[in-house]
Amino acid sequence: MATINDIGVAAAINIVTAFAFLLAFAIFRIQPVNDRVYFPKWYLKGLRSSSIQTGGFGSKFINLDFRSYIRFLNWMPEALKMPEPELVDHAGLDSVVYLRIYLLGLKIFFPIACVAFTTMVPVNWTNKGLDRLRHSNISFSDIDKLSLSNIPNGSPRFWMHLCAAYAITFWTCFILKREYQNIALMRLQFLANDQRRPNQFTVLVRNIPTDPHESICELVEHFFKVNHPDHYLTFQAVHDATKLSELVLTRKQMQNLLDYNINKHMRNLNNRPVIKMGFLGCFGEEVDGIKYYTSAVEGLTREISEEKQRLRTGTKSIVPAAFVSFKSRWGAAVCAQTQQTRNPTEWLTEWAAEPRDIYYDNLALPYVDLKIRRLIVGVAYFFLTFFFMIPIAFVQSLANIEGIEKAFPFLKPLIEVKLLKSIIQGFLPGIALKIFLLFLPRILMEMSKFEGFVSTSSLERRAASRFYMFQFINVFLGSIVTGTAFQQLNSFLNQSANDIPKTIGVSIPMKATFFITYIMVDGWAGVAGEILRLKPLIIYHLKNSFLVRTEKDREEATDPGTIGFNTGEPQIQLYFLLGLVYATVSPILLPFILVFFGLAYVVYRHQVINVYNQKYESAGKFWPDVHRRVVTALIVSQLLLMGLLSTKHASKSTPLLLVLPLLTIGFHIHCKCRYQPAFVTYPLQEAMIKDTLERTREPNLNLRAFLRDAYAHPEFRVGESSDQEMDLEKARSDKSPDLVATKRGSWRNTSLPSKHSYTNSF
Amino acid sequence: MATINDIGVAAAINIVTAFAFLLAFAIFRIQPVNDRVYFPKWYLKGLRSSSIQTGGFGSKFINLDFRSYIRFLNWMPEALKMPEPELVDHAGLDSVVYLRIYLLGLKIFFPIACVAFTTMVPVNWTNKGLDRLRHSNISFSDIDKLSLSNIPNGSPRFWMHLCAAYAITFWTCFILKREYQNIALMRLQFLANDQRRPNQFTVLVRNIPTDPHESICELVEHFFKVNHPDHYLTFQAVHDATKLSELVLTRKQMQNLLDYNINKHMRNLNNRPVIKMGFLGCFGEEVDGIKYYTSAVEGLTREISEEKQRLRTGTKSIVPAAFVSFKSRWGAAVCAQTQQTRNPTEWLTEWAAEPRDIYYDNLALPYVDLKIRRLIVGVAYFFLTFFFMIPIAFVQSLANIEGIEKAFPFLKPLIEVKLLKSIIQGFLPGIALKIFLLFLPRILMEMSKFEGFVSTSSLERRAASRFYMFQFINVFLGSIVTGTAFQQLNSFLNQSANDIPKTIGVSIPMKATFFITYIMVDGWAGVAGEILRLKPLIIYHLKNSFLVRTEKDREEATDPGTIGFNTGEPQIQLYFLLGLVYATVSPILLPFILVFFGLAYVVYRHQVINVYNQKYESAGKFWPDVHRRVVTALIVSQLLLMGLLSTKHASKSTPLLLVLPLLTIGFHIHCKCRYQPAFVTYPLQEAMIKDTLERTREPNLNLRAFLRDAYAHPEFRVGESSDQEMDLEKARSDKSPDLVATKRGSWRNTSLPSKHSYTNSF
Repeated sequence: MATINDIGVAAAINIVTAFAFLLAFAIFRIQPVNDRVYFPKWYLKGLRSSSIQTGGFGSKFINLDFRSYIRFLNWMPEALKMPEPELVDHAGLDSVVYLRIYLLGLKIFFPIACVAFTTMVPVNWTNKGLDRLRHSNISFSDIDKLSLSNIPNGSPRFWMHLCAAYAITFWTCFILKREYQNIALMRLQFLANDQRRPNQFTVLVRNIPTDPHESICELVEHFFKVNHPDHYLTFQAVHDATKLSELVLTRKQMQNLLDYNINKHMRNLNNRPVIKMGFLGCFGEEVDGIKYYTSAVEGLTREISEEKQRLRTGTKSIVPAAFVSFKSRWGAAVCAQTQQTRNPTEWLTEWAAEPRDIYYDNLALPYVDLKIRRLIVGVAYFFLTFFFMIPIAFVQSLANIEGIEKAFPFLKPLIEVKLLKSIIQGFLPGIALKIFLLFLPRILMEMSKFEGFVSTSSLERRAASRFYMFQFINVFLGSIVTGTAFQQLNSFLNQSANDIPKTIGVSIPMKATFFITYIMVDGWAGVAGEILRLKPLIIYHLKNSFLVRTEKDREEATDPGTIGFNTGEPQIQLYFLLGLVYATVSPILLPFILVFFGLAYVVYRHQVINVYNQKYESAGKFWPDVHRRVVTALIVSQLLLMGLLSTKHASKSTPLLLVLPLLTIGFHIHCKCRYQPAFVTYPLQEAMIKDTLERTREPNLNLRAFLRDAYAHPEFRVGESSDQEMDLEKARSDKSPDLVATKRGSWRNTSLPSKHSYTNSF
Repeated sequence: MATINDIGVAAAINIVTAFAFLLAFAIFRIQPVNDRVYFPKWYLKGLRSSSIQTGGFGSKFINLDFRSYIRFLNWMPEALKMPEPELVDHAGLDSVVYLRIYLLGLKIFFPIACVAFTTMVPVNWTNKGLDRLRHSNISFSDIDKLSLSNIPNGSPRFWMHLCAAYAITFWTCFILKREYQNIALMRLQFLANDQRRPNQFTVLVRNIPTDPHESICELVEHFFKVNHPDHYLTFQAVHDATKLSELVLTRKQMQNLLDYNINKHMRNLNNRPVIKMGFLGCFGEEVDGIKYYTSAVEGLTREISEEKQRLRTGTKSIVPAAFVSFKSRWGAAVCAQTQQTRNPTEWLTEWAAEPRDIYYDNLALPYVDLKIRRLIVGVAYFFLTFFFMIPIAFVQSLANIEGIEKAFPFLKPLIEVKLLKSIIQGFLPGIALKIFLLFLPRILMEMSKFEGFVSTSSLERRAASRFYMFQFINVFLGSIVTGTAFQQLNSFLNQSANDIPKTIGVSIPMKATFFITYIMVDGWAGVAGEILRLKPLIIYHLKNSFLVRTEKDREEATDPGTIGFNTGEPQIQLYFLLGLVYATVSPILLPFILVFFGLAYVVYRHQVINVYNQKYESAGKFWPDVHRRVVTALIVSQLLLMGLLSTKHASKSTPLLLVLPLLTIGFHIHCKCRYQPAFVTYPLQEAMIKDTLERTREPNLNLRAFLRDAYAHPEFRVGESSDQEMDLEKARSDKSPDLVATKRGSWRNTSLPSKHSYTNSF
């Protein structure tokens, strides 16, 4: 078991790491050359087109104004300065609601921590429960003296913890309810003030039945003309553009390789780059690189326009789904919320997500496929979750010093070095877990895609809820149960249902130190790493060196990224779970969690303002998920406390504790009835108000023109705009050749001889 | 443990009882004097106005045609004769769907029984597992030799039972799915062919918010004119008529007492009846009965019309709920399926039930009240269910012969009489349970009423589902667990989760004989008792003797009753559960269940054709509940078989059996998605078709007139029609005084001097 010294060392390491990250960030961000990495949002919004310069030679790349280095932490108050309504305008409601999750954490845990440290810590500390164990073999540290373990069995002091459990439950529920209410109101306000958008008028219809006498387009037209005669306006068919997407992707890769070869040639004009055609580009015939890729890009461009033509004229590629638009928001609200036909597997209607939120690949899936896919993913997820445990348990048993010494006796002298020992004990378990978890979101996202969701936002929500379940089972339960004894798993299954909370409850206080190091590694250093954006920074500079030739290329080289709901939210939820579970057991964990929430709030607020570019706007639709998970964490914490107390011979408290989960479930049902509809339905009254206002303001609005092609496949949309872009770019490059700076500072003319043939337009 | 002889005796007793009931029914029903008790439906439909007579004096009361006694069982084929579509017209879809539950039982269990008796019974019988126990103290009977208990531990013969479990699951699911599909289709067909009804156009709006500036009526009018401008037609306010209902009820009682006194006086003209005003009518001042009650009725009539006037003119009695009607079914379908405002606790809309189905007392309940009431009822139900067990356990421990002998040693010689012993063992446990259960539906119905449901059909559905849960816990689990050892209950709670199926599984085969007697008492004799209608028969003749004075009175004296979904359906479900659980364990139970289903089908079909008068028509809306409960029973049977086999050292089969519940749950989810919407929503296409047809057929339909007062409080409706009735009756009695036969055959003139003053009109 880790002592207070181990924790100290781990804390020191992590604080130093976090500070190093923050310092690096503070230095990097004021270098003009990194401006696009750390402030991409402003470029995207068109509010900034080149980095702010302080004058002097070289100041285009490096900041020579030394005063700015002194104020290196001033991004923090700046990040907090922007008021919330402005932030909604600037970054959208999703981001603001996401930031409120961190605030929720602060609001819940700050008072709890204050109360815990003034009342419960003294109550725990002034006992001698653990001193009696000093003679036995079980080791414990001073940290454990602050926890519930230090209270002797059957002590009346447990009433204190019972009261604390009640207080925590009521406080958490109170804050949760107020927050749910606020966010529901914010969402409704946001939707009410929102400008006109295609998705307000549009319903996604899926599973259109096939008819031998009519094409899908005719069928849709007839069906809605008959069944929504007063409200139907128009529809947009959905094409199966898989092949087109593939072609576009291939061309992009080819274009990148071409750019790379051209840039190489530019730097050394005597040496034309050659590539080998054989295996992995290492063997085989040599050909001229520029020529080869130029012809490849040209061929693909031809193929793409043919494919587009085919899709546009043919009807075979139309899938049995359509975006149906209505004359009014009222009509769309009605169609989205009602059942259309007898057969509940046909003509399924739902609100269309925003055009940029739509995940087109899944629109065509028929009803039966969806069910089968859900089943397959369910089974796959089960196996993933339960068999992932084995490697984690293995790594964690290694992280146990005694385990390592036994397995590898020759390492003993090395391990016994005090500092190293502390590092291993304080660091390794967290790192091992973190590495495992890095691979996971990708897999879960692919699972959700396979499952057939039709919008990116729902994909992310689903992936998030799977990730949370995974973390709950593997990180939380897994660490608690396998950490003490992996063999317990088997006996676990053969245990009585009400013995399970006991088993987990007992090992919870012992695991406090492990979770403290986990929070420092994953939370503190992780968040500080997030603001440094090391990966985008490197990728940007690599691209800038090898691929970038125009300002537009440079724009594309910056990946502002998104909040990443599917990875970020489950992580926060794990901290909620840890905080609620340990609030009554070992309050020493709370300050660490508070630091995480505070730091993360500032960092993410900065990122939301300056960096992230959200791919969609769902108006905070994910909040019910957030709420549900916090409530679940609360219930888990109550059950575990019950189990723990019953092993402490304080079973008189069990009936009183049993009431808490019931109350919490009741609270959840109440909140669900009261606030969830705001996130699911669109009330007719709201629709009617917006319709009436619009009709008065713009009586001659041409809605049909507004909606035309709003939901066309993105490749089509790109195609149409890029025709114009191509002309524009051509004109520009003909007139005044731009000068583009590469990282090395070599000036070069962008208007190359063969420019027009391999422009990135489409 | 009951031997095969005990079963034989019990069977004999029950068969004799059932036959006695059937015989009595066969004789009673052909007596003209009972015609209104056994064929009330035909009177209500106006197809019969007096009993069929066979000629001769006295034949008005007693059937003297002896040939008809010979054909005394010919009601059975007659009951089966009417084809289903005709039955739908005659008795409504609810009744037909209800009868199909019995058919479902036959369809599921007949093939299972055939297969079980040809394969599993020989497999069980040809073992000697129980013979080895002969030397030990555990007693067993020959019946147990037919069951799974007879197979020695770890025998490969258990593969047979595993296959049987799979076969039963697949067969049951197949039949269930086909039935669900059929009934969904029947419902949709029924609704499509249904004539014009007020509920097709009407939506019930509840929780109308209060507004200081507008009355509720104005508020409703404005809200729907604004938010459903093209579809809104009119609305009907709901009055709080509790006081009116009470007054009407009191007057009815007074009227009955008055009638009784008048009839008494008629029989003996010299003796005017007197009543005492004191305690219980036994003490105190004596007054003239006729005069007293006449004035009481007159006073109440006056009060009632005043109260009515008050309700009609005042606005204070209007509750915040309304029936809002639309111009088209489409408009109503839209309003019922959508959310109206931001606040999901206000302006709640749902399909209005039929006017006669509405339970008016609950319409005014506000949202918060509903939640609180639900909570209270939930807690009350929990205590009712779990503390009801104690008396049952006590009675059943008495029914144990050895237990009685121990408790009351002086009864020993009496009990040892062989016949008496058989009666006690075969009869008492069933009877004791049955008596307890008789009181229950009433309580559960009151609970549902308190909970706040707004239609009789939903009240009955809820009560049924509570009754089923109660029976499952108390009759099924209670009999199995307390029967073997009441002390097990405690250890039960401290058991491992996967030990519970084991514990129950082990005692299941031992309880087969108990359930066989239960089926015979509750099922066979109970059903035969149902057709005899002893209670309505007695009440009818009592009323006929004392109260009936006009043909109309006589009509009211007949209580045709209803199917009683809330009591009948849970009973059938218990048989489904028993059948599915014992199909693999002790197939000997199956024939008993089959006899029940067959007999009940014929009896209830007869009753539906000739007796019951449904109070409402929900178009089979209860089927999803029926389906869900059968699926639950299937899953329970699989879990218990799993537990049983694991104690029989056939644990190799566990993983294979574990797949079954998962498959069954998957099947249930599939059915729910596929068929349940037909019972909950009303597709817009269907609404549009009916609207269009109607508009073509009746372009000048005055819908407003059709809907006027359709949803007025029943007392209002009665009032308006009875004004006409009163006139009619007055005219009739003035012109030609009817002659009414009382049971005693005394002829009397119905037009008494004071007739008009105390007529039953209102």
